[in-house]
Formats: sequence, C-alpha cells, structure tokens
Amino acid sequence: MAETTSAGPHGYSADKQALMARLRRVEGQIRGLQRMVDEDTYCIDVLTQISAATKALQAVAVGLLEDHLRHCVVQAAADGNADAKVKEATAAIARLVRS
Amino acid sequence: MAETTSAGPHGYSADKQALMARLRRVEGQIRGLQRMVDEDTYCIDVLTQISAATKALQAVAVGLLEDHLRHCVVQAAADGNADAKVKEATAAIARLVRS
Amino acid sequence: MAETTSAGPHGYSADKQALMARLRRVEGQIRGLQRMVDEDTYCIDVLTQISAATKALQAVAVGLLEDHLRHCVVQAAADGNADAKVKEATAAIARLVRS
Amino acid sequence: MAETTSAGPHGYSADKQALMARLRRVEGQIRGLQRMVDEDTYCIDVLTQISAATKALQAVAVGLLEDHLRHCVVQAAADGNADAKVKEATAAIARLVRS
Repeated sequence: MAETTSAGPHGYSADKQALMARLRRVEGQIRGLQRMVDEDTYCIDVLTQISAATKALQAVAVGLLEDHLRHCVVQAAADGNADAKVKEATAAIARLVRS
Repeated sequence: MAETTSAGPHGYSADKQALMARLRRVEGQIRGLQRMVDEDTYCIDVLTQISAATKALQAVAVGLLEDHLRHCVVQAAADGNADAKVKEATAAIARLVRS
Repeated sequence: MAETTSAGPHGYSADKQALMARLRRVEGQIRGLQRMVDEDTYCIDVLTQISAATKALQAVAVGLLEDHLRHCVVQAAADGNADAKVKEATAAIARLVRS
Repeated sequence: MAETTSAGPHGYSADKQALMARLRRVEGQIRGLQRMVDEDTYCIDVLTQISAATKALQAVAVGLLEDHLRHCVVQAAADGNADAKVKEATAAIARLVRS
C-alpha cells in the first residue's frame, strides 16, 4: 500500500528505496563472486571481493540500526518504555559486532 | 567525589565498579599474553588467547553502549534532541563493527 | 574446460561446485533480505538476517583461504618462494579480520 | 637464553622484542581505558579508545599469524605434512574473523 510505504510502521520505511537499492548492489556483488569463481579467478582476488561485499552488508546493517534508534527507540523513550527496546537493540549490535 | 560516583554524569557510572573489574580482567589477559610470548608459547595458543581478549574487550564495548543508549540517548529523546546523540552513537557502533 | 574444472589452476577448483552452492545460498539470503524490507519486516529481524548472511559470507572466505593455504602457499613453499605468497595471504586475512 | 631468542622454536621468536613492545602498548591502552572510566569520561570517547585497542590487538594477531605461516606452515610443507598445520591455522583465522 502506498500509505504504508511512504509513512511505514518502521524507521526504515521512508528510506525503503535507498535500502532496497543497497541490497540489490550487494546481490550484484554476490553474483559477481559466483562469476569470479566460475572463471577460476585467483583466490586472493575473490577474497578481496568477499571483504568488499561484507563491508557493504555491514554498512546496510549500521544504516538500519541508525534508523531503528532514531525512530523505534526514541519513540519508545517518549512512551516511557525504552528499556525493552534498548535491550533488543543492544542484542542486535552484539550480533553485528561478532559477525 | 562520592556523589559523582554513585549518580554520575554518564550512564556507566552506576556500574563503574563492574566496568573497572572487567577492564582489569582484560588487562590481566594482556599481561598473560606477554607471559606466553616470553615463554615461547606456540603461536596458535597465543592467537587463541588474543581472540579471547578481543571478545572480552568487545563485550565491554557492547555493555557501555547499552548503558549509553539507556541513559544518554533516552534522556536526549525526552529532551527532544535525540538526533545528534543517535548520529554519534551510530558512528561509535560503526567503528566497533569494523574493529 | 572439463579438465580445468576438475584439476584447476587454483586451490578452490576441486571444490568449485560446493563453493558455488554456498555463494548461491548467500545470494538467496540477500534476496530474502530484500523481501523482508519490501514487506516492512521489523528492523531487528532484518538485522538478525544480515548477521546470518555476513557470517555465511565470512565462512566462504575462511574456506577459500584454507584452500589457498593448502594449495598455493604450500606449493610456493615447495618451490622455495613462499615469501610473497605468505605476505599476500596475510594481507587478505587482515582485510577479512577488519571487515 | 640468547640462542633461544635469536633462533627460537617458533616463528615469532626472532621478533619477540617487537611483539612484547606491541603487547605492552596494548596494556597501556587498557590502563588508559581504566583511567578514562575512573574519571567519568564520556561513553563515546571510551568506546573510541576501545575500538583503537581492539584494532591494535587484531594487528598483533595478524602479525603473529604471518610469522606462523612463514615459519611453521612453510616448514611443515617442506616436511611434507602441511595438512594439519593448515587446518590448525585456518581454525585460528576463523576465530579471529569472528572475534
């Protein structure tokens, strides 16, 4: 629905198009990796490209997290129940740091 | 000052003793690493210990970040100026994810 | 060429099919992420899936690196010129650790 | 013993002094972190310093790994039994990438 898309229930909905574009670029990088392997590209060059795709994916995560803090956590704070949201966001950050 | 310590200007002050204890444990791990190197411990065992120290350090960071979100960011949200705090916290998260 | 595929100039060629299968799975995860965003899935769930895709990608990298060490570096050692290969592999490891 | 230090059973022994110096610097960073917490330094600044210490620790690990590949793995390759050493080094790399 247009309305859901423009306002959206979540923080990232406003930037949905930008987010989708970034994920499509990462998908392109993964397809590029398959092409490299198919053409027997030198391991080290494949590894360089994997590092680039990983960084791109982490950047998407950090962007999403920023939107989440800006919208969900701040909203929860205004509603006086930030606690659970902070705990949940921290667990997501811990997973990102370890991955 | 006792008052500063118990209430504190920052989110982590309440848990200051626990935080100090964790940092002292990491310091002990780094000293343990020096001892291992001094005793010509096998590289792979030194590396395992470095991974453990790194994880301990990252866990301290995630804990600090949780306190920061819970106190500074939520307070800023209540004051209606969460924006700068969210941006700043996100930059810190991005540095952690990359380190 | 069949011969190139079965023997291959690089360490990963023998496992090329397995490597391709893993990369296609990562591609599936990235497409899944796009679907989640398109359906306005809750940020935290999207982040969990990004962590999973990042881990899968890192596992592919570690597997590639193992093949590289096992074949290229060991071969270079037998040829008496491991030095450049070790330097190159280390640079790739450093990029992975930071990404 | 001078002989142990100059030749050494492990790859890092030749660079032992440099390695010890780097670990002492990391120890200094961890003590600096304790001082920052003790003085109620702003969370974000503490986090920046944790990222720096983590990076320094990871750099020590990558340096150790390079020495290990250059000496132990290459020696094992010359002896015709690189397989176990490669497996072991890869497991250490996997732990580093995840930490």
